[in-house]
Amino acid sequence: MRATYLLGDQSVELREVPDPVLIEPTDALVEITASCICGSDLHPYHGPAVTARPIGHEFVGRVTEVGAEVSTLKAGDFVIAPFTINCGTCQFCREGLTTSCVQAGSWGRTNSTQSACQAEAIRVPLADGTLFKVDAEVDQALLPSLLTLSDVYGTGYHAARSARVGAGDSVVVIGDGAVGLLAVLSAKALGAEQIILMGRHTARTDLGRQFGATDVVSERGEEGIAKVRELTGHGAHKVLEAVGLLPAFEQAIGVARPGGTISRVGVPQYATGPVGREFFGPNLTLTGGVAPVRSYIGTLLPDVLEGRVNPGLVFDSVLPLQQVAQGYAAMEARESLKVMLRG
Amino acid sequence: MRATYLLGDQSVELREVPDPVLIEPTDALVEITASCICGSDLHPYHGPAVTARPIGHEFVGRVTEVGAEVSTLKAGDFVIAPFTINCGTCQFCREGLTTSCVQAGSWGRTNSTQSACQAEAIRVPLADGTLFKVDAEVDQALLPSLLTLSDVYGTGYHAARSARVGAGDSVVVIGDGAVGLLAVLSAKALGAEQIILMGRHTARTDLGRQFGATDVVSERGEEGIAKVRELTGHGAHKVLEAVGLLPAFEQAIGVARPGGTISRVGVPQYATGPVGREFFGPNLTLTGGVAPVRSYIGTLLPDVLEGRVNPGLVFDSVLPLQQVAQGYAAMEARESLKVMLRG
Repeated sequence: MRATYLLGDQSVELREVPDPVLIEPTDALVEITASCICGSDLHPYHGPAVTARPIGHEFVGRVTEVGAEVSTLKAGDFVIAPFTINCGTCQFCREGLTTSCVQAGSWGRTNSTQSACQAEAIRVPLADGTLFKVDAEVDQALLPSLLTLSDVYGTGYHAARSARVGAGDSVVVIGDGAVGLLAVLSAKALGAEQIILMGRHTARTDLGRQFGATDVVSERGEEGIAKVRELTGHGAHKVLEAVGLLPAFEQAIGVARPGGTISRVGVPQYATGPVGREFFGPNLTLTGGVAPVRSYIGTLLPDVLEGRVNPGLVFDSVLPLQQVAQGYAAMEARESLKVMLRG
Repeated sequence: MRATYLLGDQSVELREVPDPVLIEPTDALVEITASCICGSDLHPYHGPAVTARPIGHEFVGRVTEVGAEVSTLKAGDFVIAPFTINCGTCQFCREGLTTSCVQAGSWGRTNSTQSACQAEAIRVPLADGTLFKVDAEVDQALLPSLLTLSDVYGTGYHAARSARVGAGDSVVVIGDGAVGLLAVLSAKALGAEQIILMGRHTARTDLGRQFGATDVVSERGEEGIAKVRELTGHGAHKVLEAVGLLPAFEQAIGVARPGGTISRVGVPQYATGPVGREFFGPNLTLTGGVAPVRSYIGTLLPDVLEGRVNPGLVFDSVLPLQQVAQGYAAMEARESLKVMLRG
């Protein structure tokens, strides 16, 4: 079968590799129907050259074989995979914090037998805990939206849910990538009254308006903060930060109302941040983190299956797996918001 | 009348000053029955010499005169003052975030006519919003506990409440000062199951046990973290940080369970803190801030009046105002936990 390997230095390569096989009795094998490229894949992509390793952490597909100890899945089942591997039975999994699973793992770790998801097939460890089986008949038109449940929809939802977005809230979303846009959709679904999207790519912010943004602010830094304060008065109740860079966090503090909450889902590219008196004085709260998307699939799936939401609109490009390298190049050049790969 | 002036360089002075008079129609004059010295007063006390300014931000007393626009108070009323001045009518006051009142003020600001609270009498601006009138007959034995509602009890409660301490929680309290001890009492009242007090002064941690601590850990840093992890397994659900120094915040991160909450009420003596991936990965939440104690008095007062809690035990010394300088020296030397001053 073919699988994508990261080489770094703006290069990935589709390689012919042996078909995956069951190793542990808790494994399942899955034929991948669709996978995709994540904004976070771009960091190692444009980073320095590395020893080739498999890449990709989002997919949907059909189970082809299960190990002897897999009890909830069988060949033929359609499944959604979250971006982390988890057991489903430890106390953190039971509480819904699947990313803190005591056996948590990542797809495609270097120096392991673990394959990754931008591929034709994959071995899934801890399959009962990791994979979410879709019981309904799967309409091909829903594939993009189902695929967002692997990561970006659950991550955007995590931002809004961790911030406890509720009826009547004013919400600022920082970042117009797929996660930011789905944070907009999630804030809308949770009852936010005013949703201000901070982003500067018109095609993306237009989709943000379609998802529920009431206002768009393209300015950044002090100028952007002033604009949000014009729109909100004292600032926003909830700020959803989907970028991960320090200026975005500083901007979040600038637009938060006293007593407000900043919820981060952009992986911090910094070690320390401004949580001194400017944060303490107005009683700000900082929350969010690595999204336990596995535990949200069951919550978010019904609206997807019944067409009440269409998160799959974040995929503005669908390519055959064969063209994965073009997909990376298009996302790197910001010509594509998010690329879906068909097997 | 006499009022305490801060000089800095380990010195305060009781000075004879003119009696306070009404300035604004929203003012009230109060004869101070009891005031006290706060841990936070020690920072400027042992700091460099400064131009003399009035000091103190906690008191209870009797109203002697009110301005023409004061509608809820009259001479003779017994009142509790929070450590900040607030209007009671702006949107933040109405929401209970009185410390973000749009007219919020502090006692004893330099270069103002505002007097401060370690004195015999005081002018109280925005009296309707600021002062809390106690309708019950005031038993002298309750004075210490009533006085804690000015700051330390409400601040300890803010730590526990902001962290949403609830039934079954494991809680770590960092700091065995008056606020930390009252955070213990508050966590207990809110239903915490395990309360681990991190502190090293036996007299204080003994009082912490009396307030509800189930365990005491005297070690700090890595050693303290290891001890807490022995007691909790994966760490505590809620960490109440009542110190304000960076090592205390780092310790809080070390003892927090994945998905846990750190609630700070110690004023940060640092501008930036470690909120990068070590904070983001386990989905920690940071909350707390300057406590809006004015809005908690009504909640906490009944248990005080009916003797169900005795927060006044944090006062291990009662001195006449005349001996305010000895009171500062005793707290600075850690011979006293908290000193109450009688008029």
